[in-house]
Amino acid sequence: MKKVAEAFRERNNFLIMAHINPEGDSIGSQLAVRHILETLGKSVAIAGQDVVPENLKFLPGTQEITRDVPEDFHPETLIILDCPVLERVGRIRGAFDEEHFILNIDHHVSNEYFGDVNWVESDASSVGEMIFGLARELGIKIKEELAVSIYTAIVTDTGMFNYDNTSQRTHEVAGELISLGVNPRLMHGEIFEKKTIPEIKLLGKALTTLRMDGDEKIAYINLTREMYREEGIENISTDTFINFPRSIKGVEVALFFKENKERPLKINVSFRSSGGVDVNAVASCFGGGGHPRAAGCVLDMPLAEAQEKVLAEVRKALKK
Amino acid sequence: MKKVAEAFRERNNFLIMAHINPEGDSIGSQLAVRHILETLGKSVAIAGQDVVPENLKFLPGTQEITRDVPEDFHPETLIILDCPVLERVGRIRGAFDEEHFILNIDHHVSNEYFGDVNWVESDASSVGEMIFGLARELGIKIKEELAVSIYTAIVTDTGMFNYDNTSQRTHEVAGELISLGVNPRLMHGEIFEKKTIPEIKLLGKALTTLRMDGDEKIAYINLTREMYREEGIENISTDTFINFPRSIKGVEVALFFKENKERPLKINVSFRSSGGVDVNAVASCFGGGGHPRAAGCVLDMPLAEAQEKVLAEVRKALKK
Repeated sequence: MKKVAEAFRERNNFLIMAHINPEGDSIGSQLAVRHILETLGKSVAIAGQDVVPENLKFLPGTQEITRDVPEDFHPETLIILDCPVLERVGRIRGAFDEEHFILNIDHHVSNEYFGDVNWVESDASSVGEMIFGLARELGIKIKEELAVSIYTAIVTDTGMFNYDNTSQRTHEVAGELISLGVNPRLMHGEIFEKKTIPEIKLLGKALTTLRMDGDEKIAYINLTREMYREEGIENISTDTFINFPRSIKGVEVALFFKENKERPLKINVSFRSSGGVDVNAVASCFGGGGHPRAAGCVLDMPLAEAQEKVLAEVRKALKK
Repeated sequence: MKKVAEAFRERNNFLIMAHINPEGDSIGSQLAVRHILETLGKSVAIAGQDVVPENLKFLPGTQEITRDVPEDFHPETLIILDCPVLERVGRIRGAFDEEHFILNIDHHVSNEYFGDVNWVESDASSVGEMIFGLARELGIKIKEELAVSIYTAIVTDTGMFNYDNTSQRTHEVAGELISLGVNPRLMHGEIFEKKTIPEIKLLGKALTTLRMDGDEKIAYINLTREMYREEGIENISTDTFINFPRSIKGVEVALFFKENKERPLKINVSFRSSGGVDVNAVASCFGGGGHPRAAGCVLDMPLAEAQEKVLAEVRKALKK
């Protein structure tokens, strides 16, 4: 951290980047770092390959995140946040040659230390939590705008303080942020409660398809293109759907089968495990992957056939 | 707090009670107080009119909570937790005359100071948070069993740290509890993720009934006895159903209409407001009540009629 603080003080032009498909930690920590550098009087921009998710647009400053490096901006230093490998920044990576000075700030245990300075804390809940410490190290007065960005990073990466990465330090930082003006109810409302009508209706339809298998240790739901058509829409965010079959008492593996938009139809499968089954291994049987407790794959076959094949593999894994 | 600590040290036989329809804060703080008193070598029991909710039965010691005062137990001191008025303890109140010494420990702003000692902290997130301070005051070493009870009290009363009552102190206590052995992921799983299959299916059915009114500022869902019959069950917990219409972007008032079990049918209505409409006032038009942001009432008429009448009142309130 001290080397990062030194670079923040000594260097002048910074471009901040995080990973493709950004979420609360990457957006929140990018905004927080920009705020710190601006407070230090530095020249700074944020660029990201993909758009800011709808639920994070309330954060002050997101409208200034550009999809490309601004043409008249020539950064000497690249700050890469929340990326275990440099390729995770996506297309924008191509705008820079090898000679740029890179500050790699991350909390993934798998980080590949690709930077000129590498600050990696794998026991931090989020990059946002790390940036809070950096702001203190640099003697920055943390105002509400900065506090809100860091709080967003923490609550999205910890699922409201309930994942394994939530530590005593995480709570201490969240508590300090509240004392600095963060309103937890309003923040929760902005980040987690801005659903659309079709999201709620399609969630309802998906939940009515709930079926059990493997002695009620497997719960699965599905979402078909027909359901989308009934609601007259093309696409919605379905990230949280898998949480519902997972939340059933006694369930060890939850599955969510979704017909995707492509023609011919393909089936996206999401897996969640309570810990007994390694769903990364199961998903990899179908060319997918992920983590032991959360994984995914895509199957090029009709829904019923995909369900049959995946269920057979999960049943096998349960018997081990 | 010091007077409560003194009473804990000096007195010997304690009966602990909390309110009817107990939830995480009342069960968690009762168990925590018992643990503290037992550590001090005191004689102690917990009695509650109603059963411990299913999702809290994992807490060590809940099986020893009795539904009546044990016959051979003659407490000199009553500890009343999380009750703004003494009547909230329900039926068990009748077992005691006026002469019993009462310790009233609560965090409701409306507490009526009915005890011989009254320790009321309306800015505490939960009674559990207060008990943490008491344990420290008494010099009790907080072991995992005690930590788990207090953590349960806090996360249930703050909705996982997202309600207005979540303070810096709340987070500091939660952080300390994690350092004492609480596993947030396992706790979240026990408390919030032990759904039943019919709960998920009926949630799905209810969500597919979603309708909007009042320029999309009102969202409402319903649950009929027919839906219960289709799933072949009598009753489920539907406490969280109202969260779904409430979570829609732009919605100011969410409503949940539920046909209840009685014959002839009555309709239970739950109201939630984002703050602009006082739903306590609306519910009171129908003989119900609650708080400005969360209220309820019961209507003795068919579902369609109940919806029409309630929607008319909510539309009126929105125009004010």
